Amino acid sequence: MTYCIGISLNDGLVLTSDSRTNAGIDHVSTYSKMNICKTNPDRLVVLMTAGNLATTQSVVEQVQRDMRDDSKTNLNNLNYMGDIADYVGDLLVNRIRRYTESSGFVPDASMILAGQIRGGRVRAFMIYPQGNHITTSEETPYLQIGESKYGKPVLDRFIDLETTLEDAAVCSLISMDSTMKSNASVGPPIEVLMYRKDALVIQSHYRFGPDHPYLLQIRQQWASQLYNAFRAMPPLPLVTS
Amino acid sequence: MTYCIGISLNDGLVLTSDSRTNAGIDHVSTYSKMNICKTNPDRLVVLMTAGNLATTQSVVEQVQRDMRDDSKTNLNNLNYMGDIADYVGDLLVNRIRRYTESSGFVPDASMILAGQIRGGRVRAFMIYPQGNHITTSEETPYLQIGESKYGKPVLDRFIDLETTLEDAAVCSLISMDSTMKSNASVGPPIEVLMYRKDALVIQSHYRFGPDHPYLLQIRQQWASQLYNAFRAMPPLPLVTS
Repeated sequence: MTYCIGISLNDGLVLTSDSRTNAGIDHVSTYSKMNICKTNPDRLVVLMTAGNLATTQSVVEQVQRDMRDDSKTNLNNLNYMGDIADYVGDLLVNRIRRYTESSGFVPDASMILAGQIRGGRVRAFMIYPQGNHITTSEETPYLQIGESKYGKPVLDRFIDLETTLEDAAVCSLISMDSTMKSNASVGPPIEVLMYRKDALVIQSHYRFGPDHPYLLQIRQQWASQLYNAFRAMPPLPLVTS
Repeated sequence: MTYCIGISLNDGLVLTSDSRTNAGIDHVSTYSKMNICKTNPDRLVVLMTAGNLATTQSVVEQVQRDMRDDSKTNLNNLNYMGDIADYVGDLLVNRIRRYTESSGFVPDASMILAGQIRGGRVRAFMIYPQGNHITTSEETPYLQIGESKYGKPVLDRFIDLETTLEDAAVCSLISMDSTMKSNASVGPPIEVLMYRKDALVIQSHYRFGPDHPYLLQIRQQWASQLYNAFRAMPPLPLVTS
């Protein structure tokens, strides 16, 4: 499986992804799910992917190939992030349909698209296997794909529109750590990308391997802080029903 | 939906359940999912239920009815908790099959069965809609049914065989709180049942309504402790790739 988080804040974007893939039980390997698209400098477009690896690889490849032919719809000649979400959604649903028709197997996948076009707003979309998409809101400024439930409570606690990029990045790493603790199909390297609004270039792109000291520090410190928090919980009341 | 946890420790059992049910979007109501079976005093049997309410209600009713007729297999004339799990599994799968055949709709449900028969070990089982079941292990001394993912990381962190009943009860309430924070389909009252090994009677049975001061205290204190833990996390390293 996979776990990717896209957070869209007043300050910009924080995108976080794991790197574990398995195409069948014997093909466990690592593969980056954070695709920074090589667009023109007037825009930044990042695509994170979850689900069937054959599907997501072929969609990402098609996106790249389309950019070399300006007679085609592509990331560079669309003027709105919403139109780019439609375009990527169409590629996705067509690719899934093609293999479903030929094999009967439905190679589902979903994606988080995030970025900004000069003059436009910072946007993030989650694209469903059906090709349609949702975006973030004031109340829920983040999107998740893959194994999303284990790491959701910590995002719900700490992320709102005012959160800084740095705090959101740390929170996304805690969310990733909780997920890895409870699900073997999500694993490092963990990538974190931070983008500050209107910069049109990436501010930082971290890649934390399994033994990266910062990842270990986050894991150990969060575990010991939670342990202390647990030890400090009030005892059950004595009155019982 | 539902969220129920069954923890089987060296000291005994801790069983925790929410009470939200919905049979269709307009039929949201509360309904206890913690069924303490009225067996003979040589045994204690508790059944927690998740899934289709019509299915689980009819299985629980059948279990109760069978106990009135000793010519039938029932909770009182079986000698092993494992046999009781088989018996309940059979009732469950038959009930699901009956409605599937007549309507085409599969009213799936799953259950946690826990308890002890005098002279036997304390046991807990998770019974699948297919009627088969798994039990706890040394490494994983707990079982979950319903919306299990949100609250799993905190159980993975703090629960092992040596955990006391009291600590496990608090941990299960934190797990329940995390789930309620991220999923609207799980809600109070929250029931917690503690059973000490070989007692054959329940030690305590708590029922916390939405405004119960202890539930609020757990929620607020856990939230503020987590916030402090989050604020204390080390900042991201400056070196970027």
